[in-house]
Amino acid sequence: MNAPAESRWVSFPPYVARRPRALPGGFRATGVACGIKPSGDFDLGVLVSDEAATTSAARFTRSGVLAAPVIVTRDRCRLDAIRAVVVNSGNANAATGGRGFDAAVHMQGAAAMVTGVDAGTVAVASTGVIGVQLDGGKVVRGLAAARPTLTADGADEFSRAIRTTDAFAKEAMLDVELPSGTVRLSAQAKGAGMISPAFATMLCFVQTDAAMSAETCDLLLGVCVKRSFDRISVDGQLSTNDTVILMASGASGVSVRPESEDELRLGQALDALLRHLAVLIVRDGEGSRRIGRVVAEAADERNAVRAARAVANSPLVKTALYGGDPNWGRIAQAVGAALADQAPVALDIWIGDVQVCARGAAISHDAELLAAAATGEEVDYRVGLGGEGAQAEVFFSDLSYEYVRINGEYTT
Amino acid sequence: MNAPAESRWVSFPPYVARRPRALPGGFRATGVACGIKPSGDFDLGVLVSDEAATTSAARFTRSGVLAAPVIVTRDRCRLDAIRAVVVNSGNANAATGGRGFDAAVHMQGAAAMVTGVDAGTVAVASTGVIGVQLDGGKVVRGLAAARPTLTADGADEFSRAIRTTDAFAKEAMLDVELPSGTVRLSAQAKGAGMISPAFATMLCFVQTDAAMSAETCDLLLGVCVKRSFDRISVDGQLSTNDTVILMASGASGVSVRPESEDELRLGQALDALLRHLAVLIVRDGEGSRRIGRVVAEAADERNAVRAARAVANSPLVKTALYGGDPNWGRIAQAVGAALADQAPVALDIWIGDVQVCARGAAISHDAELLAAAATGEEVDYRVGLGGEGAQAEVFFSDLSYEYVRINGEYTT
Repeated sequence: MNAPAESRWVSFPPYVARRPRALPGGFRATGVACGIKPSGDFDLGVLVSDEAATTSAARFTRSGVLAAPVIVTRDRCRLDAIRAVVVNSGNANAATGGRGFDAAVHMQGAAAMVTGVDAGTVAVASTGVIGVQLDGGKVVRGLAAARPTLTADGADEFSRAIRTTDAFAKEAMLDVELPSGTVRLSAQAKGAGMISPAFATMLCFVQTDAAMSAETCDLLLGVCVKRSFDRISVDGQLSTNDTVILMASGASGVSVRPESEDELRLGQALDALLRHLAVLIVRDGEGSRRIGRVVAEAADERNAVRAARAVANSPLVKTALYGGDPNWGRIAQAVGAALADQAPVALDIWIGDVQVCARGAAISHDAELLAAAATGEEVDYRVGLGGEGAQAEVFFSDLSYEYVRINGEYTT
Repeated sequence: MNAPAESRWVSFPPYVARRPRALPGGFRATGVACGIKPSGDFDLGVLVSDEAATTSAARFTRSGVLAAPVIVTRDRCRLDAIRAVVVNSGNANAATGGRGFDAAVHMQGAAAMVTGVDAGTVAVASTGVIGVQLDGGKVVRGLAAARPTLTADGADEFSRAIRTTDAFAKEAMLDVELPSGTVRLSAQAKGAGMISPAFATMLCFVQTDAAMSAETCDLLLGVCVKRSFDRISVDGQLSTNDTVILMASGASGVSVRPESEDELRLGQALDALLRHLAVLIVRDGEGSRRIGRVVAEAADERNAVRAARAVANSPLVKTALYGGDPNWGRIAQAVGAALADQAPVALDIWIGDVQVCARGAAISHDAELLAAAATGEEVDYRVGLGGEGAQAEVFFSDLSYEYVRINGEYTT
């Protein structure tokens, strides 16, 4: 399956050029097969910055059950100065106890040796089956094999190695024209794939050769993640392994200072890039035929987010999206359930440009326009909660027979 | 489809006899077709107690978007002295604004006339499509036709009139031997059915001829609802219309006093009755092949409830249940997402009697026993959260192709 066409929900700023080429300056990457995936496909990826002054920032799943690599990266890695990333797919190294923790630490150490950086600057990530011990020997042997293949052209291999059952690649390389000069920005993501008997895990690694402080990395990543990976739902199920890492090598010599026009532009490019990848993850949502976007408007952001998430996570809204059914009663139901403490909610609902509900009550509308709005590849929902000033947007996939097949039919 | 066999999760106390017979003393009921359902099936039910001293209690959906009948019953009906109930199916009278509110009030008034009780003691309930105005004329004409058919033998007709696409009836009649004498207890419920383009709505009406105070009604109903209808998930979607009403006519002359053995026994009978009906609703969950029960144990009840609900609502757990797949990684994931503030969670997980995870880590187990435990009609999950003293139990249906067909294929 090829990557889908561009989404109308994401546009890149005019000073951004999408260009397939090498990684940003300072970075090398690779991907190999180390034998974790029974298919023999790539399952071990390494990424390294050769610049000693590399800065970074990271975000992790908020789950109360954390995979070993998440704990190791969070607690034993300098998150503001990550030099290398090692990722395996095919095994989540989650619910694996002390043995799993040791395996993640060993993976960190072996990757440090292979990339020539300090172990305390190596981030570890895993994705795949839960509750099965990770074979550390395969990882170490795979890392040894990966060493000579690390190259500035290795992004595709790295990207392939971090995917599980993703139907298509989720990566992009950008040139970003800043007032101070042109920098490169690239990212590799995986998500919405599944490897039995586990569940989707979202990973994303972002590189730039801009020079910026770790604080700037953290600020930009925090803002952009909140508008992208934090605003998507395939099945509303938070993973134990989600990890997003931004690394800035500084190799371009272009310095991005706080509150500068450079920072603003780079932030907008990063925002478009992560939203692009986030929508690709939803588009690749297991079994998805159509995808939706819900925008909720309210007086305060918390209620807007709660309402938008409830609509995006509702299996009834998702099945209606799948069926192309403009069944807005389900939207009213989902919002009501989410905002139980806000009753009565004076709901306005639009599907596409067609308003179907005003201040909580059905209104007459053009049924043909409504049907057309509900049957596109990308369906827009807008929900007004009786206030202004705050807005939340969530992208979501539908719920299809194929989702049930993928998640129900494979029996361990 | 016939009602399924008894569930091993519900047992009636030895002093309870299940006996199909007339309603408890003092009650009459009926059901008629008034033309709301295009199929011509029964869609209007009336229930009345002829005893002036009837006491009652009620519980409603916690949704922030309330249907008109819920608002009317909550705000314009004496909930401790309900004498009559009028219910229509085929239209939820939700998201219908001022016109819908007026329709619910008219329905209340017309039912008062037909049953001969004060309008302020008539409860109103609706279930069906959302966002379509209720035809008040049909309801009024239907009530006139229903008047002469009200009878002590009318429970089946009433039960039929409140259902939508339920595959089987959900009702029961019990004799309960109390120390002070025998009382009757009956209930009619509907749920998990769907009528396009709406969603499932749960209704339950309970009658007894025991004599007891409204406070006792409220206490017993509150405790028993919390262990039954408040602990089920078909798709985790809270309705705008959920209503449960208990009425006690006192016609048996058997008085049930607070903190008496009578109260204890009646409470246990009510508990078994509502759990019986709740499990039937889950069993009839749209497209359900298998049903599950998850019991979560923790140091405090809030965490136990959060974890159990998260497991029961997870589409990944539900598809695994459908597939008979003992995929316990999804249980770890669901609990972790629900208890993000409790990390690290020292999870124990059992499927049936087979423990698969101890203190957060996979343990070896008998794969054949595990497979057998995951493929029954009723699958047991137990989750330990690293504490004792509190327990929460939730019943849930699976997520099947049929669920997607029911909710996705019908296009308005």
